[in-house]
Amino acid sequence: MDHEKGKPLFQKVALIGIGLIGSSLARAIKKKGLASEVVTCARSEATRNTVKKLGLVDAVYDTPAEAVRDADLIILCTPVSTYDDLAAAMAPSLKAGAIVSDVGSVKESVIRDVGQHLPDGVHFVPGHPIAGTEHSGPEAGFAELFEGRWCILTPVVGTDAQAIAKVSGFWTALGSMVEIMTPHRHDKVLAITSHLPHLIAYTIVGTATDLEETDQNDVIKFSAGGFRDFTRIAASDPIMWRDVFLNNREAVLEMLQRFTEDLTVLQRAVRWGEGDVLEDLFRRTREVRRGIVDAHQAGTFDAREPDEDPKKQ
Amino acid sequence: MDHEKGKPLFQKVALIGIGLIGSSLARAIKKKGLASEVVTCARSEATRNTVKKLGLVDAVYDTPAEAVRDADLIILCTPVSTYDDLAAAMAPSLKAGAIVSDVGSVKESVIRDVGQHLPDGVHFVPGHPIAGTEHSGPEAGFAELFEGRWCILTPVVGTDAQAIAKVSGFWTALGSMVEIMTPHRHDKVLAITSHLPHLIAYTIVGTATDLEETDQNDVIKFSAGGFRDFTRIAASDPIMWRDVFLNNREAVLEMLQRFTEDLTVLQRAVRWGEGDVLEDLFRRTREVRRGIVDAHQAGTFDAREPDEDPKKQ
Repeated sequence: MDHEKGKPLFQKVALIGIGLIGSSLARAIKKKGLASEVVTCARSEATRNTVKKLGLVDAVYDTPAEAVRDADLIILCTPVSTYDDLAAAMAPSLKAGAIVSDVGSVKESVIRDVGQHLPDGVHFVPGHPIAGTEHSGPEAGFAELFEGRWCILTPVVGTDAQAIAKVSGFWTALGSMVEIMTPHRHDKVLAITSHLPHLIAYTIVGTATDLEETDQNDVIKFSAGGFRDFTRIAASDPIMWRDVFLNNREAVLEMLQRFTEDLTVLQRAVRWGEGDVLEDLFRRTREVRRGIVDAHQAGTFDAREPDEDPKKQ
Repeated sequence: MDHEKGKPLFQKVALIGIGLIGSSLARAIKKKGLASEVVTCARSEATRNTVKKLGLVDAVYDTPAEAVRDADLIILCTPVSTYDDLAAAMAPSLKAGAIVSDVGSVKESVIRDVGQHLPDGVHFVPGHPIAGTEHSGPEAGFAELFEGRWCILTPVVGTDAQAIAKVSGFWTALGSMVEIMTPHRHDKVLAITSHLPHLIAYTIVGTATDLEETDQNDVIKFSAGGFRDFTRIAASDPIMWRDVFLNNREAVLEMLQRFTEDLTVLQRAVRWGEGDVLEDLFRRTREVRRGIVDAHQAGTFDAREPDEDPKKQ
């Protein structure tokens, strides 16, 4: 769906929470003219003042109930552990026909937590933009964050088709590619492509942090050999990621178990000097990278491949 | 040490092997005028033809013995498992006073393998530039690869100070920062900053490869959530990395053991929903990233921070 500036898709959009993702949405909606009015709410006065100073939205409220009043589209942009209470708080103020969506990194638990509170006549279209950085807060956002990125929508069976189409059109207008799948599939795929990589990155950076102090200095100094990539991932928002692991437990534990088995095989190969086991795996994994690069070049993939970065050895 | 083009540091430099690192050295030496003559050798005719076609060096030989004749500086640029045979083959042809160095990612095994073959009067100054990409082969090199990068030298006690100074000056002229440490320390630091991250990246990409086929497609499609960073690391040269693990076994197994213990604690926290354990770690690791970014900004660190890359969530 092409969108030209000046034809808002929604009259009023309410962003519940305005950190990296919420503030990027605010900027992008404004830039592309996707709504006549964008409002938000934030619990802390400091955040509300920052948002006002940055001029990101038309109004900043203290509570979600105030923010969602008369809104056509409401997007939850807070850590997923807050969804239950937020949905309960805003439910009575939602107007009939409103669409509620979110940007949470897990989807089954979100449908459980939010769905139970929403009144009849309000449409719920859960979403997850595969986009972000290791920075947090309203200052960290930027309007181009979603361009060339996938956004996965996971509506439950029976959701109003027009509501799904409107949310899909919204993300397309932001420059994203939209994919619709079941929440179960989403949580499984993201467990291996995102949640496990984060858990492992957090772990190895923690392991390095526990080294003796002189070693730690060298770790920081010589981090270009691969470690630095992990530190970037492991700098992601602590609360958001805590909530991801607490809310996608089964899928994460399943992938973690597979990973641990595979790592144990490699550990044994290193210990016993089985070079062929190592080499076989290392050749296989190289092919996966080629698949990603090919998908990228074929244009069927995330358009925003990071710059080639000379590093490691 | 400043180096102006036109004053070669060495008369003749011989690069033994000419893949990503060797060909980057050839290009950089030519570009900066660091030697009057640069030669190389390669086992395969295809590589020799590629190198000739690219015009990277003044002469390409079939054997190391031919290449090192009259050379003032010889740099081994092949996977470290080849060093033993290469050193034995070239030793009789080395001229008195020649300096032998290398670019291998492990150092204790290199000193054992190479040191035993070198005649008296030849100086051995092992080196390791912390630089590279996931690409391999003579076409993949570029002259700027070493700029702003650390190069670690690990000469054994008693090595000729002038030889160390010459190798140090060589890397400085290539734009690198030089650090001298013991081979034991090098192997320990690199085990955590480079070898373990690579082993883990190879493992997780392998784990994803073993998923059912439909899941694999989704893994490639939605890899921007963190996984893609791992695939880049896991696309590094299979032979080179096999050799690294075979030759730094003790340090890698030690770090791997620590990592596994830490991961098990996290796994338990995920299983039992211990959010505070997760959050505590995630806050700590964020500080490590800040240390790296601060070191970078203070100019005491690798000057080539990768571009900020919006990604993951």
